[in-house]
Amino acid sequence: MTDSAPSDFARRSAEINDLLCVLNVLTWDARTQMPPGGSATRGGQMATISALARERTLDPAFEEAARAADGDPAAAQALEAIAALRRVPEALTRDLATLKTEAQEVWARARAASDYAVFAPLLGRMVDLNRHLADALGYADHPYDALLNLYEPGLTLRTLSPLFERLRAHHVPLLRQIQTRPEPRTDILRRHYPAAAQKAFSLAAAQRFGYDTLRGRLDESAHPFEISFTRNDVRITTRFQENFLSGALFGTLHETGHALYEQGIDPGLTRTVLASDLTGLYAVGGASYGTHESQSRLWENRIGRSRAYWERHYAALQGAFPEQLADVDLDTFHRAVNAVRPSLIRVEADELTYDLHIMLRVELERALIGGELDVADLPAAWNARVKADLGLDVPDDARGVLQDIHWSSGLFGSFPTYTVGNVMASQFYDAAHAALPDLEAQLAAGEYAPLREWLTEHIYRHGRTFTPHELLVRATGRGLDPQPYLRYLTDKFTGLYDLAPQESHA
Amino acid sequence: MTDSAPSDFARRSAEINDLLCVLNVLTWDARTQMPPGGSATRGGQMATISALARERTLDPAFEEAARAADGDPAAAQALEAIAALRRVPEALTRDLATLKTEAQEVWARARAASDYAVFAPLLGRMVDLNRHLADALGYADHPYDALLNLYEPGLTLRTLSPLFERLRAHHVPLLRQIQTRPEPRTDILRRHYPAAAQKAFSLAAAQRFGYDTLRGRLDESAHPFEISFTRNDVRITTRFQENFLSGALFGTLHETGHALYEQGIDPGLTRTVLASDLTGLYAVGGASYGTHESQSRLWENRIGRSRAYWERHYAALQGAFPEQLADVDLDTFHRAVNAVRPSLIRVEADELTYDLHIMLRVELERALIGGELDVADLPAAWNARVKADLGLDVPDDARGVLQDIHWSSGLFGSFPTYTVGNVMASQFYDAAHAALPDLEAQLAAGEYAPLREWLTEHIYRHGRTFTPHELLVRATGRGLDPQPYLRYLTDKFTGLYDLAPQESHA
Repeated sequence: MTDSAPSDFARRSAEINDLLCVLNVLTWDARTQMPPGGSATRGGQMATISALARERTLDPAFEEAARAADGDPAAAQALEAIAALRRVPEALTRDLATLKTEAQEVWARARAASDYAVFAPLLGRMVDLNRHLADALGYADHPYDALLNLYEPGLTLRTLSPLFERLRAHHVPLLRQIQTRPEPRTDILRRHYPAAAQKAFSLAAAQRFGYDTLRGRLDESAHPFEISFTRNDVRITTRFQENFLSGALFGTLHETGHALYEQGIDPGLTRTVLASDLTGLYAVGGASYGTHESQSRLWENRIGRSRAYWERHYAALQGAFPEQLADVDLDTFHRAVNAVRPSLIRVEADELTYDLHIMLRVELERALIGGELDVADLPAAWNARVKADLGLDVPDDARGVLQDIHWSSGLFGSFPTYTVGNVMASQFYDAAHAALPDLEAQLAAGEYAPLREWLTEHIYRHGRTFTPHELLVRATGRGLDPQPYLRYLTDKFTGLYDLAPQESHA
Repeated sequence: MTDSAPSDFARRSAEINDLLCVLNVLTWDARTQMPPGGSATRGGQMATISALARERTLDPAFEEAARAADGDPAAAQALEAIAALRRVPEALTRDLATLKTEAQEVWARARAASDYAVFAPLLGRMVDLNRHLADALGYADHPYDALLNLYEPGLTLRTLSPLFERLRAHHVPLLRQIQTRPEPRTDILRRHYPAAAQKAFSLAAAQRFGYDTLRGRLDESAHPFEISFTRNDVRITTRFQENFLSGALFGTLHETGHALYEQGIDPGLTRTVLASDLTGLYAVGGASYGTHESQSRLWENRIGRSRAYWERHYAALQGAFPEQLADVDLDTFHRAVNAVRPSLIRVEADELTYDLHIMLRVELERALIGGELDVADLPAAWNARVKADLGLDVPDDARGVLQDIHWSSGLFGSFPTYTVGNVMASQFYDAAHAALPDLEAQLAAGEYAPLREWLTEHIYRHGRTFTPHELLVRATGRGLDPQPYLRYLTDKFTGLYDLAPQESHA
């Protein structure tokens, strides 16, 4: 094998990578540009490309090429992905895809009518198929582990459950204490903010973080997302609401975090197995859903909602919205974008209660997959949990168990990655801080390159070379550890709400 | 074979069709949305999809399936396409693709420097490869016929040459006569026309013709085009110049004509061989380049530049641009958008001199491919022809032989289809007129549905079911016939320029 002629393994990997990237182009277009009439034939086109990617990955010649590519660090990953794909019968893959289409449609109707009974039979079938999937994939302790492993390789309930218990034991009392304090003003975020000015400010903010628009672009879509077609074309979307400032603003910073990860992957990994997941689950080149989420959360919350950030940039925001923010001082604004308030809807939740929404879902989906909870009993279990954790009564299923698209899409096991991402974000931040003594001064000066470069060096450039655990240990010296995250939240909200010292929670 | 289970041939055809449509999505995105950094990896993705489409088409199982699909009218076409693809060695396809990339780059530099010598060696190699391609494809009389046949199946120089001679014999004297008359004002089109108002008017005009934006959308691109991803998603682009009104306006009507064709293809042909060219040359589901061009020209020129059109819609245009058009009456505007004036640049040419630009190119490319003209002698031959037909001196090669991208892209044999389209457009229009006695009254009333429905019935819905010749004969009772086109031009410009009767030319 010479350097100039790509190996058979490299050539075949590139082809599969191209197919997965093309699938992402088709997805991006479908969500941002496609006229409504195009959806049925687009579905067929995407199914064709998916099937080809699967066919090429399971081609015995690819396995042979991977076995022959001893020196290539991607070969082991390819063989693992091949084995995982092989374990899932094609009929099950097809059944899941078919049910997903039907279940999403029925779910949308059920949610509109707030009628869980309409959705329940479909959900029952979806749970059954996901239990079959878990059996096909294999697990040691609990079928949920098999599904979790799809999104967060190596993570199991054995690690996750105590972690979540510790978070709940921290979050709920902290929330109760916050609720004893006066509520900050948030009405100022609900004034009229023209979309064009929001877009200009958000895009400039993304670029300040280092988002390279020569290799990306910001568009609008109903549900914001980041998607990449190699590191050279990494797109983000947001949704501008003219009566709500922070949605698009922090949404853009969130997607920018995902995009920085993708744009920072080593150019040498382009079109290799180390920049795409061969099982076709990932629209990303990063190590896992959780690792990816750690970066969106880090840039959105840790940086974007920090006092230092707004000390630096609030004047510019006031310049963009002079009338809307004329009577709002920095302190009021900073408290508004960090206001904690229990709410029924996950996607509207603040930084603290968000984890409670996640943990609730994880507990319930784990019980469904484990056969410990019946689909018929799900709404009652949901509502009881909301009452216990958030102190709220769920008035109807649309604002309760029917609010998320995930279960109708067959995504069981992906919810934990949101909170795992929060935990990792603080671990990475603390490690960067330890390595960069001037970090706080740099951030205060609006210099984001040093942090981004540290993250690139320790996380982004590696793509999928390491498992999330390996990556964490290499970058921070430890596995998943909630301590930095809990300390960050405690410090932040103790300060923001003038609470009594919170030693016991962190 | 039952109705409910698609045949192996149908299934395989659908897969190939999907790949070709996906290639179109990638092309559209690259030309309208893609950030510049994405181009290299996008090239790899497109090459992968192209290669897969070729592989699937040449898969012996597909040929077998086509032979087994006796009852399917698409099977014969599939077998023909397979045979055509087989005739071209894969090495030649690859060499052409490689040279195209290099030649386009060198051509762009040569044009910028107006230095033909830089481009000549590349052009020489491109001519050589196209002669090899012609040999591989096969022909009876002249190698040019083999290339022409790619874009206009069945058409040969034997038919084309006398047709073109007749057009030149008509156009040149008519042009000379027009040049004896006072020039109409055209400065009014060069006022400041804001892009947003241009876009709104253009899109409304496209929709009035029947362009369905539930199955399409209008975007901007450097070079306007229409592209489809099945009849359910047919997109058009245009380029707005704020100092030139008619570019985007008539450009949009032109692309709308292409789009009406694609949107009018029978739904039953979706994902079949009869809605895509398996050789991968066509980004279209129509019968040929010329047939497609007949529709863009018909809607742009025959309808969009007609007196009746502007009698109906000029008030709305004045409403969109009240200051710019306040002092311009209908008559002045109508003469301006139909002004005939020899110019050096094809894409800026008027309806009459456009054909002269085309015929010049066809004559020269035919001679290059036939070995009758040396690449070194091309500029002199170009300039002589421009002098003879248009009466102009070519000041530099940038405004002469280097102006078009076609030859650097390896497109030899496609130029004739522009003029063939003009000829067909008038044949189709006359046939529609004969069938619809109220057509002129309908057009005067702004009712475009009857004409569009006739065209759909006789042309659009058939997709690639018939050859261009079969389609013409079925719809008009005759093969390619310049008589209706010559009469249309004579009548139109005799009226617009108050010329003496032109009996002899038509």
